Amino acid sequence: MSAFEPDAHLVDDTYPVTELPLCQLRLMDDSRFPWLVLVPRRPGVSEVFELDEADQQQLWREATRVGQTLKAALQGDKLNIASLGNMVAQLHVHVIVRHRRDAAWPGPVWGHGERETYDLDGLAAMRGRILAQVEGLDL
Amino acid sequence: MSAFEPDAHLVDDTYPVTELPLCQLRLMDDSRFPWLVLVPRRPGVSEVFELDEADQQQLWREATRVGQTLKAALQGDKLNIASLGNMVAQLHVHVIVRHRRDAAWPGPVWGHGERETYDLDGLAAMRGRILAQVEGLDL
Repeated sequence: MSAFEPDAHLVDDTYPVTELPLCQLRLMDDSRFPWLVLVPRRPGVSEVFELDEADQQQLWREATRVGQTLKAALQGDKLNIASLGNMVAQLHVHVIVRHRRDAAWPGPVWGHGERETYDLDGLAAMRGRILAQVEGLDL
Repeated sequence: MSAFEPDAHLVDDTYPVTELPLCQLRLMDDSRFPWLVLVPRRPGVSEVFELDEADQQQLWREATRVGQTLKAALQGDKLNIASLGNMVAQLHVHVIVRHRRDAAWPGPVWGHGERETYDLDGLAAMRGRILAQVEGLDL
């Protein structure tokens, strides 16, 4: 079995934030939405059901808890959690805090308009907010 | 606490298929995609994290297992699992079997083109296939 590495497309589109017990937590480089991507550190997996039962539970637990705390911190209106993977085969879960005033509301974020990448200050600020929230979590 | 009832929009857009241990299993009335909607029978809940821990695990378990068996039965290329809820506040999880030849591939199904509703024969056939798969599941 080869070692875990995030897919090249994920590396291009997202920034690493921290390591959770199962997943690498990454931030989508789109400042229009607080948009996290959780990538289980398991090589060769593309569907949730290909993980063993304990990993499946841990994946959803990490996605749900990280989403819950970030939605509260950012005063979001709704949480979106999704495993799609039509474009990038490596298993990853999107966790997005949605606001009624955001660019894509009430539609989904995927494929909506043009991405607005972070500048360095914006990236540092968002990374800091995420880290501050995630550090206290029981995962 | 009021009793569980599916949201009126879900009733309009989907057909009931069967009852799982936690969720009502419904079929989206769009014959372009094998598209299920799982609605936990818990009133007043709109986010996954508002369920208790056991219900959260059961929800993801039902979504993942139903998706796995249906993907295999329909020879799907990818499974999409998503909790969005931007339009319908009542908690529900989408489970969609995707094919590389389907109308929206590789984009998401939400908001893609015009819905193609089932005719009665097509609906009966799809319901039958889903029921045959779901009956044997350990949920």
